[in-house]
Amino acid sequence: MSAPTEAVPEITAYRSVPDFAYGRIKDIRVRWALDEIGRPYRTRLIGGIFEDKAPAYLHDQPFGQVPVYKDGDVTLFETGSILIHIGDADERLLPRDAKGRGRAISWMIAALNSVEPMIQTLVVLTVKGQGTDWLAGAIGAAKPFAEQRLSRLSQALGDRDWLEEHFSIGDIVMIDVLRNANPELLAPHPNLTAYVARGKARPAFQSAMAAHLADCAVGEPLPA
Amino acid sequence: MSAPTEAVPEITAYRSVPDFAYGRIKDIRVRWALDEIGRPYRTRLIGGIFEDKAPAYLHDQPFGQVPVYKDGDVTLFETGSILIHIGDADERLLPRDAKGRGRAISWMIAALNSVEPMIQTLVVLTVKGQGTDWLAGAIGAAKPFAEQRLSRLSQALGDRDWLEEHFSIGDIVMIDVLRNANPELLAPHPNLTAYVARGKARPAFQSAMAAHLADCAVGEPLPA
Repeated sequence: MSAPTEAVPEITAYRSVPDFAYGRIKDIRVRWALDEIGRPYRTRLIGGIFEDKAPAYLHDQPFGQVPVYKDGDVTLFETGSILIHIGDADERLLPRDAKGRGRAISWMIAALNSVEPMIQTLVVLTVKGQGTDWLAGAIGAAKPFAEQRLSRLSQALGDRDWLEEHFSIGDIVMIDVLRNANPELLAPHPNLTAYVARGKARPAFQSAMAAHLADCAVGEPLPA
Repeated sequence: MSAPTEAVPEITAYRSVPDFAYGRIKDIRVRWALDEIGRPYRTRLIGGIFEDKAPAYLHDQPFGQVPVYKDGDVTLFETGSILIHIGDADERLLPRDAKGRGRAISWMIAALNSVEPMIQTLVVLTVKGQGTDWLAGAIGAAKPFAEQRLSRLSQALGDRDWLEEHFSIGDIVMIDVLRNANPELLAPHPNLTAYVARGKARPAFQSAMAAHLADCAVGEPLPA
């Protein structure tokens, strides 16, 4: 929809994160997409996850998260939105035909709204509930939702390499979601475990992760 | 991206849902968008939420949910993906310029990935944990995440009518997410309560909800 520009886009990333978040921040998804198409970018480091953000930053990213993406006069937040923008300029990430494009975007949104939330709920409960007497009950209630989604996903993937015939932004987000799940959740589905390994073996994932880790220190304290 | 077609698109919806889901199913978002631009559609009713789905349906919607959207040779799942497709054909839902388009899509993805999951977690815990001794602890751990997102959203909305200058698919999804939150969560933010009321007062929301309710009976039993 928007013409690709020649300028180098900028993404924001955290300078420092707590231990539990190291290697799991969402700027990785954007770096990965850009590395897949060999498009250079520059990084602007901001404070940690829990640091207060300046009003100007909150204008660009209302929730104070990373990444913000600036490309010419376009400023985007939310990795899903950024990946559609990047994909629109390169068919290696997003097919040109309406049918293929729609299917790839559907998968990406499914990763964001039908898979990640159920996995993220388990992570939040586990981190906040460590050592409490309510953790087991809450996990017991929430886990079947994650398990059901992963079963459906495993069935849909079958023995293909990627969610559709060609790798797309749908795979980038889905693989990033799955690699952050408790491996126990994936264990019943060897095709999902292999799918994640296949994604992580891509040179663009590896360069994106290396650049992410080079920018990001462990050490931000948790809020009181 | 895809040319609008003259054919009437088809959406799927449930024939029957359990009491807790009545009036809360996501085909409402698609009906609302189509009614905003006066585009007719037809509905294909499938079984209930918990009924097994046919393999052909799971091909179109891997998680067995509604709606599936068919428009010419394009078949989409996930309301976010469907709303981008519908918005791409009509600037009343999605601005034409790259800057405005990007901002509207960013808000829509924020609703799907940064607001809805935190609210949905509370709904799931509340429904599944009724009468248990773990509910209070789990809600106490999960609620601050929802509260923080709503505070940020309230700050970003300020005294505007919509998330940006013009109403968009970002508002459709955000308002639908917020109207399904426990009103207690919105109470500290009168501007969010007013924003939801403003959305629900739109003729297109009202016609969409009426059509949804006319198609959908209450009565599906919960799974054992």
